[in-house]
Amino acid sequence: MLDINKAIESLNWDKEPKGLYEPIAYTLASGGKRIRPTLALTAAECIMNGGLLSGDAIENTLPAALALEVFHNFTLLHDDVMDRAEVRRGRETVHVKWNDNTAILSGDQMLIEAYKLIARVPNDKVQRTLEMFNEMATGICEGQQLDMDFEHRSQVSIDEYMHMIELKTSVLLAYAMKIGGYIAGATPAQQEALYRYGLHIGLAFQIQDDILDVYGDPATFGKATGGDICCNKKTFLLLTALETADPESKAELLQWLMATGQDEQKIAAVTAIYDRLGVREAGEAVMEGHTAEALAQLDKLPQNDATERLRELAERLVTRKS
Amino acid sequence: MLDINKAIESLNWDKEPKGLYEPIAYTLASGGKRIRPTLALTAAECIMNGGLLSGDAIENTLPAALALEVFHNFTLLHDDVMDRAEVRRGRETVHVKWNDNTAILSGDQMLIEAYKLIARVPNDKVQRTLEMFNEMATGICEGQQLDMDFEHRSQVSIDEYMHMIELKTSVLLAYAMKIGGYIAGATPAQQEALYRYGLHIGLAFQIQDDILDVYGDPATFGKATGGDICCNKKTFLLLTALETADPESKAELLQWLMATGQDEQKIAAVTAIYDRLGVREAGEAVMEGHTAEALAQLDKLPQNDATERLRELAERLVTRKS
Repeated sequence: MLDINKAIESLNWDKEPKGLYEPIAYTLASGGKRIRPTLALTAAECIMNGGLLSGDAIENTLPAALALEVFHNFTLLHDDVMDRAEVRRGRETVHVKWNDNTAILSGDQMLIEAYKLIARVPNDKVQRTLEMFNEMATGICEGQQLDMDFEHRSQVSIDEYMHMIELKTSVLLAYAMKIGGYIAGATPAQQEALYRYGLHIGLAFQIQDDILDVYGDPATFGKATGGDICCNKKTFLLLTALETADPESKAELLQWLMATGQDEQKIAAVTAIYDRLGVREAGEAVMEGHTAEALAQLDKLPQNDATERLRELAERLVTRKS
Repeated sequence: MLDINKAIESLNWDKEPKGLYEPIAYTLASGGKRIRPTLALTAAECIMNGGLLSGDAIENTLPAALALEVFHNFTLLHDDVMDRAEVRRGRETVHVKWNDNTAILSGDQMLIEAYKLIARVPNDKVQRTLEMFNEMATGICEGQQLDMDFEHRSQVSIDEYMHMIELKTSVLLAYAMKIGGYIAGATPAQQEALYRYGLHIGLAFQIQDDILDVYGDPATFGKATGGDICCNKKTFLLLTALETADPESKAELLQWLMATGQDEQKIAAVTAIYDRLGVREAGEAVMEGHTAEALAQLDKLPQNDATERLRELAERLVTRKS
């Protein structure tokens, strides 16, 4: 398997003006799981039926895989400005280390850099790849807008929440799979299976994230739990609790949503309500459903080492602790 | 000639979520000269040697022409956030009418929308068009970064200033010409001539802008003059004055640069120094040089109605009052 981190490191940001490019280098050097380019390359490998990708195949798929990672990091950069987030992956965010204007402009340039990588896709596949990349990027922006809208709404249904996380999280994983497969020569039916695999693991991933924020072990999760409860974040758990609670539990929950400055009691009390209503189990059931859907897609694809890795990834999602 | 405004109006922004798309519709509906798409279409028309563009030709060039206009408006949207500008084309800017986050996210989506239009270029020309569009977009971001850097620097040379405005203003006009011509089938030599025409009228345009901000007639210029002087903006006039002044005039000028809260006297005094040093004439000479360069490029192109309109445009630049 290709070393994604090495490929990302080989991108050159030692250019003028430094004020524009240094924040890009800083953002891309801060790690992360590199899940999106890994998915794109694994999808390509699965379609090519081989064990390791040949040199040519890498040449063909790598620019798009890198474009997805650069794009993802662009969204984090701008999201951090919008959310006023101060820390990302253990380091100061760009708008804190530099300033808002730098974060906006370097983010814009990162988005353009992603498109520069798309321009390096083989000529006969640029147009369709560009179309898919644009659809993906539009989904992310629409998802971010819905997420911001939801913050100011008193009621959000679970369906609306699922639609939002599909756009904000899953569509990028889905298109990573589809684009990787498309460039490797996947048939339309295979592209669809790859897309749906990505979509469903994305949904499972996000619900697991909501669960871990409440029930994770801080030691393995990497951050304190209860953050979502403290800030009344409309997660799958909270929306399910609000939608399924008996009047008494609902009143108690709404009461706690208005509480501020007593975080520890609030976390304990809301978690107790969640426990009583069984929302964790409800979330796990939905998550397992999406995992099963993702696994079912893999049966429609060539069976090889890459397919096996995609199977393991989906299964690992359900049991992950961080 | 195609009606650009109609083509822009026909873009559909009646989509969900409204919070994302309404600011895009608002920005594109606020007018402007539509100079960039007009240049792209005129370049195409010039190359095609015809009077009016045929239906097919319009089909081929229009998406890229619109992409340039959407991109230009995206840069205005984000620049207004960075510059904290409150009014644009006589209306509240997006970050004032909505908020910063909306301006950032809708701006991002506008940039993506520009790339959606690029994806509609004929298949065999998408890759090269995308490459050119990316080079252009990178130039704009680099130019904006340099412009912000210059604000915090005590010294900027005229050469540095010309490089900055080349990136921030001219490159977009240059690529509008080149992309329009390329899609219409221009030879590499013709593409180069189109590019250089756009580059030189852009430089002439920016210097004329600097001159009008001091010497324009507020009635025809559309805004009060002296704004650049009040905020010590490093324009061609100021940098030329600083570079060419005798020690006494330079000291007087630097003294005025430190003055605040006495705008009327400052404008009068700095203008008097400019008059004494002849910086207006110096600017006009440089501007006329670029106009002549632009006109010289047109001799390398097919001669027809479109070429004539490009000639008139270059000549009008030198004498424009607004």
